[in-house]
Amino acid sequence: MIDPRTLPTASEAAMAIRQGRLTSVRLVQACLDRIAEIEPAVEAWSFLAPAYAITQAEARDRAQNAGESLGPLHGIPVGVKDIFDTADMPTENGTVLHAGRQPAEDAMVVALLRAAGAVIVGKTVTTELAVYSPGKTRNPHNPAHTPGGSSSGSAAAVAAGMVPLAIGSQTNGSVIRPAAYCGVVGYKPSFGLISRFGALRQSPHLDHVGVFARSVEDVALIGQVLMACDPRDPAMRPSPRPPLVEVVNQDSSSPPRLAFVRSPFWDQADPEARAAFQTLARRLACEEAELPTSFAEAAQIHRTLLEADLALSFSSEYERGKERLSPRLRTMIEQGRQTLAVDYNRAVAAVPGLRRALDDLLQRYDVILTPATTGVAPAGLASTGSPIFCTIWTLCGVPAVTLPLLTGEQGLPLGVQLIGREGDDARLLRTARWLSTRAQSA
Amino acid sequence: MIDPRTLPTASEAAMAIRQGRLTSVRLVQACLDRIAEIEPAVEAWSFLAPAYAITQAEARDRAQNAGESLGPLHGIPVGVKDIFDTADMPTENGTVLHAGRQPAEDAMVVALLRAAGAVIVGKTVTTELAVYSPGKTRNPHNPAHTPGGSSSGSAAAVAAGMVPLAIGSQTNGSVIRPAAYCGVVGYKPSFGLISRFGALRQSPHLDHVGVFARSVEDVALIGQVLMACDPRDPAMRPSPRPPLVEVVNQDSSSPPRLAFVRSPFWDQADPEARAAFQTLARRLACEEAELPTSFAEAAQIHRTLLEADLALSFSSEYERGKERLSPRLRTMIEQGRQTLAVDYNRAVAAVPGLRRALDDLLQRYDVILTPATTGVAPAGLASTGSPIFCTIWTLCGVPAVTLPLLTGEQGLPLGVQLIGREGDDARLLRTARWLSTRAQSA
Repeated sequence: MIDPRTLPTASEAAMAIRQGRLTSVRLVQACLDRIAEIEPAVEAWSFLAPAYAITQAEARDRAQNAGESLGPLHGIPVGVKDIFDTADMPTENGTVLHAGRQPAEDAMVVALLRAAGAVIVGKTVTTELAVYSPGKTRNPHNPAHTPGGSSSGSAAAVAAGMVPLAIGSQTNGSVIRPAAYCGVVGYKPSFGLISRFGALRQSPHLDHVGVFARSVEDVALIGQVLMACDPRDPAMRPSPRPPLVEVVNQDSSSPPRLAFVRSPFWDQADPEARAAFQTLARRLACEEAELPTSFAEAAQIHRTLLEADLALSFSSEYERGKERLSPRLRTMIEQGRQTLAVDYNRAVAAVPGLRRALDDLLQRYDVILTPATTGVAPAGLASTGSPIFCTIWTLCGVPAVTLPLLTGEQGLPLGVQLIGREGDDARLLRTARWLSTRAQSA
Repeated sequence: MIDPRTLPTASEAAMAIRQGRLTSVRLVQACLDRIAEIEPAVEAWSFLAPAYAITQAEARDRAQNAGESLGPLHGIPVGVKDIFDTADMPTENGTVLHAGRQPAEDAMVVALLRAAGAVIVGKTVTTELAVYSPGKTRNPHNPAHTPGGSSSGSAAAVAAGMVPLAIGSQTNGSVIRPAAYCGVVGYKPSFGLISRFGALRQSPHLDHVGVFARSVEDVALIGQVLMACDPRDPAMRPSPRPPLVEVVNQDSSSPPRLAFVRSPFWDQADPEARAAFQTLARRLACEEAELPTSFAEAAQIHRTLLEADLALSFSSEYERGKERLSPRLRTMIEQGRQTLAVDYNRAVAAVPGLRRALDDLLQRYDVILTPATTGVAPAGLASTGSPIFCTIWTLCGVPAVTLPLLTGEQGLPLGVQLIGREGDDARLLRTARWLSTRAQSA
């Protein structure tokens, strides 16, 4: 029997299954046992079908015994945020307006997970329509604190050892923030690397698919599985799958060049978080780099795009049931309905300049090191915390990863966010692994 | 001495120059003689520098005599619509607000013309900021009639035998319409095939570069020169240059399949034009094809996009001199300033569906045959006529060519528009050549 508290990483488990030292059924059962034990306190799942998970695992084991070729996630249990369509489970998008909704077709990422051999354990809790209003999930480190959002259940499920891997989405800070609050590794790839076909749409400019795991190797493993070009997502360009798994384990010839960036939002971070980051940056001998002043407008640009995009994406929800939307989302949609096209297009037009400025900076450094959040997970479940330390990177579409390297107030985890150059996700993850290893040995 | 009335086509002249039977100086001088004779009646040029054109031609002849390698347009005179930046000539965009404007850098298309050996004779008249308000140009077939717009001077200059080639732009009907009214071949390639860097921007979604000539071979020749990928235009994707020149002269194994499409705007065509098209469609044994009903909204979608884009593109002109804009343009900008982002984005989102419907139709036919305009060039210079028969094709980014195959009221030319499948410009031009040849021999 696997001790759920020492659940192997996905990379370890995949190897053990491949080598016959572990079966998918045993691994999935261990996850289900852990879920049975801790779900009442954490409430990470919006839909869970234990018997069906075992059925999938049995089929994986049978396929292996029959000598079929095995995908990179063969037999590995995965949690899927309940905004990705699943043909065999409901997809309710965190709103009563979609209660009982059963898609006919899998989202592209779900199809890719299945094709890679994964077992879809269930659907994880999302905030309302993946925006701000919280679901039921609690932080596994302290159930009186928020897990962050919008990918609340995915982050909490991985943090609680319920599954080794989960997928989520980020339009502002919805992967990095809950990963940081819950003390796991969260990875939001470069814009356009993972198909959003079959995922709830908030904003075609800002929506990203992201992943959660307990190690950098694991986010590379699942990330690479998901990076298949899909013409049904117009943001994708034909390009080879980045060699994340190969590169993440390479040693770079020299220590990476790290830039510590406070960002224009530094004053919004807690004093304790600011102190912890300054100490870390000194310890790692980071150079301090400043973003051009134009980045001060990034949050307003993001807001202009997001509100107008929400107004269009959720127009039918608004029209048929605005009284069943949260007041905060309703306000955002109502503001978005007033946004002028010239202001929207001015915001769209401002992004390439910001992107170029980041690209220039990231020609001089391997990664940017910056806070993932304003501090540890806030107390209470009424808010999922501030996404402000993610906004710039989401807006610019650069890859981001958060590592659970620091501990803040009340012993809660504090995430260290690394930002890579657009399209150079492999180098970002390699540097993240280097930093994880170094931090653990320090 | 070349008789200007029998000016060779660009393809013929390029061959004659290459073979030493003609010099660039002789050809350019012949064009200048023709311009001197007829420009007072036509007024196609906003900037003309005859001595400088001869200087360029002399340099081309010297380069040839020195044995340098020759580009496909070596020594050929070209007219450039005055919305494309030229580092050696003013670029005034058809508005007093830009009077005396001298760019520092060539537009990409101008640089490509020079690199191909062309001689830039001068800048041709555009309507005000390439929108509706006419410039001074008159129709060479009858100076009491409009030449069409916005590329008025380019169409008229080619029609009058002043230059064998000219470039223009189309955001609604600004290449096809003046080409049809002036009785020349006009070609608007697929969206994203020609860089708009250094061209006046109206709408990033709708702006296309197009070309004018007196034969289909010639539009293929200059079109291919201009189709070089340029990362400075975000609409361009890396792709090989389409083999227009090679394919245009191929014979297809079987007669092309032609679909006659009346379009939702058929009732706006003059009775004489409708009759002429029905006769032509019968004579060519076209099948009649109908567009899905969704295309009835195309004109409104185009208008929503265009007005909001004009409001942003010309915001500085509006703010510093709205009293010097024409009332019509001012009204469009003012409407565009009120456009809501949700309506704009709904319009953007409607386009892919229209594009797919056209693509489906064009899998069953080689080309669509449809009117280029509502009829012949209207009398008077106050309006440049209706672009409505171009709107759908511009909105969808499909390639279009107009051929001067019909004659309408008062002996004025009536253009036959052919539409190809998006990206399959070579096949469209091959079919256009087939139809030109057939019509001439019929």
